[in-house]
Formats: sequence, structure tokens, C-alpha cells
Amino acid sequence: MKKNAFYAQSGGVTSVINASACGVIDAVLNNSDKIGTLYAGRNGILGALHEELIDVRQLSTEQIAQIRQTPGGAFGSCRFKLKSGPQYDAMYRRIIDVFKAHDIGYFFYNGGGDSQDTADKIATFSRDMGYPIVSIGVPKTIDNDLPFTDSCPGFGSVAKYVAISTLEASLDVASMAESSTKVFILEVMGRHTGWIAASAGLIKQVDADPPHIILFPERVFDEQAFCDRVAYAVKNYGYCTIVTSEGIRNSEGAFLSERGTTDSFGHKQLGGVAPVLAQLIQEKLGYKYHWAVSDYLQRAARHIASGTDTEQAYALGQHAVALALSGKNACMPIVVRDSDKPYRWHLSDVPLSTVANQERPLPDNYIDDTGFAITPACLDYLSPLIQGEAYPTYTNGLPNYARIPFTCVEAKLPKWKQS
Amino acid sequence: MKKNAFYAQSGGVTSVINASACGVIDAVLNNSDKIGTLYAGRNGILGALHEELIDVRQLSTEQIAQIRQTPGGAFGSCRFKLKSGPQYDAMYRRIIDVFKAHDIGYFFYNGGGDSQDTADKIATFSRDMGYPIVSIGVPKTIDNDLPFTDSCPGFGSVAKYVAISTLEASLDVASMAESSTKVFILEVMGRHTGWIAASAGLIKQVDADPPHIILFPERVFDEQAFCDRVAYAVKNYGYCTIVTSEGIRNSEGAFLSERGTTDSFGHKQLGGVAPVLAQLIQEKLGYKYHWAVSDYLQRAARHIASGTDTEQAYALGQHAVALALSGKNACMPIVVRDSDKPYRWHLSDVPLSTVANQERPLPDNYIDDTGFAITPACLDYLSPLIQGEAYPTYTNGLPNYARIPFTCVEAKLPKWKQS
Repeated sequence: MKKNAFYAQSGGVTSVINASACGVIDAVLNNSDKIGTLYAGRNGILGALHEELIDVRQLSTEQIAQIRQTPGGAFGSCRFKLKSGPQYDAMYRRIIDVFKAHDIGYFFYNGGGDSQDTADKIATFSRDMGYPIVSIGVPKTIDNDLPFTDSCPGFGSVAKYVAISTLEASLDVASMAESSTKVFILEVMGRHTGWIAASAGLIKQVDADPPHIILFPERVFDEQAFCDRVAYAVKNYGYCTIVTSEGIRNSEGAFLSERGTTDSFGHKQLGGVAPVLAQLIQEKLGYKYHWAVSDYLQRAARHIASGTDTEQAYALGQHAVALALSGKNACMPIVVRDSDKPYRWHLSDVPLSTVANQERPLPDNYIDDTGFAITPACLDYLSPLIQGEAYPTYTNGLPNYARIPFTCVEAKLPKWKQS
Repeated sequence: MKKNAFYAQSGGVTSVINASACGVIDAVLNNSDKIGTLYAGRNGILGALHEELIDVRQLSTEQIAQIRQTPGGAFGSCRFKLKSGPQYDAMYRRIIDVFKAHDIGYFFYNGGGDSQDTADKIATFSRDMGYPIVSIGVPKTIDNDLPFTDSCPGFGSVAKYVAISTLEASLDVASMAESSTKVFILEVMGRHTGWIAASAGLIKQVDADPPHIILFPERVFDEQAFCDRVAYAVKNYGYCTIVTSEGIRNSEGAFLSERGTTDSFGHKQLGGVAPVLAQLIQEKLGYKYHWAVSDYLQRAARHIASGTDTEQAYALGQHAVALALSGKNACMPIVVRDSDKPYRWHLSDVPLSTVANQERPLPDNYIDDTGFAITPACLDYLSPLIQGEAYPTYTNGLPNYARIPFTCVEAKLPKWKQS
């Protein structure tokens, strides 16, 4: 008898995670002879724990197309880690019970490294419980720090947004610099790795071009070297564009964004590294500055998503279903790069057990000797990932993004209480 | 004998000020029987003072098309006020001397209210000096606070960027809110007027839709009412999206962004209102938050410029030349709205003397009774301004923006020294 499938979104969302969702949805609908229905978890794996299941058969073809071009997690995501250890056993059992109650035999988990670990445990736990689930991961993270896959869905679109935004703001400050603002600082995501900040380097052709400084978490922040370089750029190019990762640290290992600022009431001031750098420049060099923190805007910017990224996100979702139907289990589809120029890639897969709890920082040969710029090797890697403009459709001047009020199927089990 | 023309960009630049420049350029080139060459000032009016003149005949048709789709000021802008008073007389005389030396009889000044005042004085001064210049303003300001014109070039594109960014970030936070971030704050420009913040209201269809709170400089910031509304949104809609103008003030008239925060060394912390609001929410309500400051990104976002805005920016540049050739002087072309639905507009003009030193805040009937949202009347006004996506062309995944190293014509006068 045909089994049903369950799909869940996990962790920080991206502008293309819904493209992966639609890859899974379309592949399941196209294989209705082998898989029953597909349920999406409301708010990710919490939807399994709370037995809040969205039957995707309620979606029209038009709605699926609309979800595919919508940023964020259409079904809801969550930050909820299912780790190892006996205190989590009850949760795994609950998830398997819910799957059993709804005749679910396939689990597709769309997330980063931690989620792949959870998916792996679901495969093991369900087998041990005598109700074996086919558990397949679908990669997702704007941080691009998953191992094995050449790139992660979500990253290429952030890279494109950051490169374009840095170029645009640099054209702005360059035209004002003679008599006004001389330094522009853009803070981007990346607490542990500098992939996103590195992507700003895509706009640099010659030394005079922005960005003049990129700050990577992979390098210790050197205040003097930084100030020298800002002064050099302003003197030689008229202005200085800085792109900083949120996670840069000083030589004591402390985040610059947690410099311990307090307001006039003595409260600790929380927030960005950009204003900290701005203040440093103000004090040491006296230049007029502007700073921006793009935060969620960068990872939700579906309006300027990368063609490569949206294509791969969808393809990986489809491939996850193909893997399940081919008899594979506890694995994750990945992108394998065949060549940079022309850019060629194909899909493959790796065991979930090898993916979890690994981190992929920028390779040493992607950061140049100054520590403030990327190398040609990094450029060759990044460039294919931002190709193509996957514009959404528009109505009345605004993107046609899905805002669908889903209903969940009727629960069959008692309510779940976290013990 | 044919006179030459001079064009200068002034003040904070926009994503479409170069479209206005190209309107002027194309109109001058198309009237080569009436006007000689067009010089653009390097770094705005400073280019006239320093006699740094860029002859636009060095530009190819392809370069002009590229400049037209490039954000920032292609020829450079400046923050440099030429006010009234005898201490400025020498500067006005210097500008007229430079114009005389290069046989310039037409002056097109692309800027906000202060610049229109300067353009007016150039007309008067040159006439008094016996070398009458035809002086025409071209409106420009993202703040949309110029009087008479229905809207200002630059504003529609910022409005579109802010509306789309707010929608995208809201879809992101909505999908995370169950277990993580519940409040998202976007800080936008607007020190004295709330036009830009108001544009986020374009994405709201029903009460549950974002933005749940808009903060306008036209309303005093009420901490209690604000916190109550944040809590209401989180309780009823699961999350809260806030869009704040940078220039909101408390009941004492102090900017919230200058709350007097100091770092651990006792230095005054400079910067945004978004982190101040985030901290308030953290202290009073305890919700997890994210904040973004879009700063230059919003006014440079040519990649998602409004079709209406780019069209009007270009048309106003062209009309400025037409006005000059029709014998008008000391005036500024404006957009007059004929109807909201369908949106119809035509060009007209007003005397420069009436434009200067006026400010146009949001009308009272554009902000609703709560003080946190816009009215249907405001929506009717804003909606036409964001219609159409004026995408730039792309090469290799990045917009084809102009980065042209201009050369200036040979100086004919001694160097200028500010007395």
C-alpha cells in the first residue's frame, strides 16, 4: 500500500526554501502512483510534534506556482533542535507515532546541518521502533556552510543581493564623497563564516573599485590595519566601502558587536557591528560615514533572487523525492560542480550521518594576503552562483507573494505535551 | 549665437537622478540648433566653482543609456549650500564668471528645495551682472517633501523598495515567529517627514497584514501606546512588523536615535533608531527581535526602481530644457496628477521663488487615528507611484551600471579660492 509523505522547513528561512518545497510537492504529485499525499508540517518539525499537518492537495496549481516564488517559509519554520540523548527520545517517539497515525512513510527535512542530524535520527529511530521511515534531507542555508554540496540553496540569492546592494550604495557614496559622506559600511549575516561578505567582492574589477574592505569571521579584526586601509581608500579613491560579517571578533575572541555598549540608563546596548565600526572610524579618522544593516532583507530578497539558486533549490527538492523512490534512505541530495566556465553541475547525494555537525569556513585560498579581500579563486567559485535574475511576477507594483491561510487535517492522537 | 548649457546634481542622490540627467542630455542633444554643448559639473555646483566641467559630447549613445539606468550621481553631487547674504556674493559671481568663460547661457540644477533657491539666485545674480542666465530647476528628493509637484523623482523608487522589503522581511519573520523572532523593525529615511515610512503601508490589505506599526515624524512617539500595539500584534497575529522613520521624536522633541547611548569607554554611541526601539521592546516585552537599517540601500536600489518614477524623472529633465527653449526662466517643472485611477498626469511648472524653503509633511488625513498606519487616501496617492518594474540590464549576474572616468575640459580662469 502507498505511504504518505511529510515535508518540513527548518531553521532560518531563505528566499528560495519555498522553491525546494515546490520541488518536493511537484515530484510527489507527479508520482501519485507511488506516494499518497504530502503533508507539510505547520512551523516545521513542531507541526509533527503538535500533529498540525497541512495537506498539500488543498493547493491549486496557481498557488503552488505562487509559493515557488515567495520568500520565507510558506508552511512555517522553527528553531527547535532535536538532539541526541535520552531526554529527546520521547520527542522522536512522538514524531514516529504521528507519522504512523497518518500513514507517513517518507520524511523530507529542509534545513541546515542540525536538521540533517535530526533526519538521520528519524531514520534510525523509526527502524528501531519497527516502523521504518525513509528519511531524506534537503539542504538549505544562506550561510553556505554545509559540507559536500558545492553550494547551498539560499546562498546564491543572498550573494546576488549583497553584491548588487554594495555596488548601488557605493555608487551613491562615491557621488557624495567630495563634500559629504566618505565611508559606507554594510553589515551582512555570517556569524561563523564569511561566505556572504565575500560575495560583495563580485563587484570589484580593479583596486579602486568597491568594496575596499571585506571583514571575515575567519580573520581576527585588527583595528590598526583596518583604520590604515580605510584612510588609504579615502585618500586614493575618494571614499571607502566596507562590507562586514556580523561575526567578526577581536584578538581576545570577543564579537565586536558585543563591545559592551550601554545606554544612558546603564542598560546593555544590543546590536550590530556596523555602528561599532562607524564609531571607530569617527574617533580615529574623523570621516563622515553612513551604515546599513540588511538583516532579514538579505535572506528574504526574492525580488532579486539568483536564477542559478532558484533552479538548484527546486531541483534539490525534486531529487530528494527521486532518491526516496529509488530506495535510498538517510541521505541528502547535493550539487556537484563539474566546471566553473562554463558553469556545469549535476546532482548527487551523501549519507546524512556524514553531513551533521560539520562547518565549512571560507578556504584559506579564497581570502587574499591582506585579509580584506577575496582572491580570483573565490571569484571563480562565486560568480556562477549569482547568474540569472529569477524575477517574481508582479501585480499593481508589488510581487505576487503567497499569503495562504492553510488549514490542518484533523488530529488523530491526543495533544502533545513536552515532558 | 548659440549658448552652451550647464547641468549639476545637488544634495543626496537617488536611484533615478541620472534618468533626469539623461532627460536633460537627450533634450539638449536633440536641440543642437538652439543650444551648443552641455557641460555637467563635476560634483555638482562645486564643478562650477572649481571650473571642473564635463563635456557630455564625450559620451556615446550606449554610455548615455547606461547612465540612465545607474543609481547615484554619475557626475558627482555635493552638499554645499549657497545661501543668501553678502558672504555668498563672491561665490555667485565666481559661478557666473565660469559660465561666462564657457559661454554658458542655460543652467539646469537638479536638486531639492535649497537647490531651487540657489537656481533662483543664479537667475537674479546673472541678470544683475549683465550676463543673464536662463536658470531652470529639476526636482529631486527621495523625501518627497517639495511643494507643488505631485511627487518628486526618487521617491517612487524608494517607496517601492521599502514596500517590497517590508513584505519580504515580514514573510520571513512570520514563518519564524512560532519559536523564534517575533518582532522585526525596519528603519527607513525621513528626518522630518514620513513619506518613505508611509510607503510600507502599501502592502497592507487586512488588519493582520504587515506593517503592524508605522512610526511617522509627524507624530510624537508615545512609548506606552507603541508597546501596547507591539504586544497586541504579537498576541493576535503571531508577530509584529514595525517600519520607523529615522526622525521620530519623543514628547520633549528629542530624536529617539540620539538617546545618548554611550559605550563602555564613555563615548557617545551614534546611530539608528531601530536598535533603540529593539532595546525598548526587549526591556518592556521581552520578545526576540531583529532589526534592519536600509540607509543608502533604499535610495540607491535602482535594481527595483519604479517604472512611474524613472519615467517621470526622465520626462522632468526633458521638460526643463523645453521650458528654457520656450523662453521661460527661474522656474521648475512639476508633475500634476489628473487622476488616481487610472493614474494620469501631465507636466507643468512653477516659479523657483515659490518652491524654496517650504516643506511638505504628510497631510493629516494620510495618517489614521491610531497614528500608526496610513489611510485609504494615502494609499490612493502612493499606489500609482510604485507601478512598473524598471529593471536595468544585466551582464554576468550584475546590473550594467556606468562607471565612467570623465575628463574635464581645460580651465580658462584662475583657480578658485574660497575667501
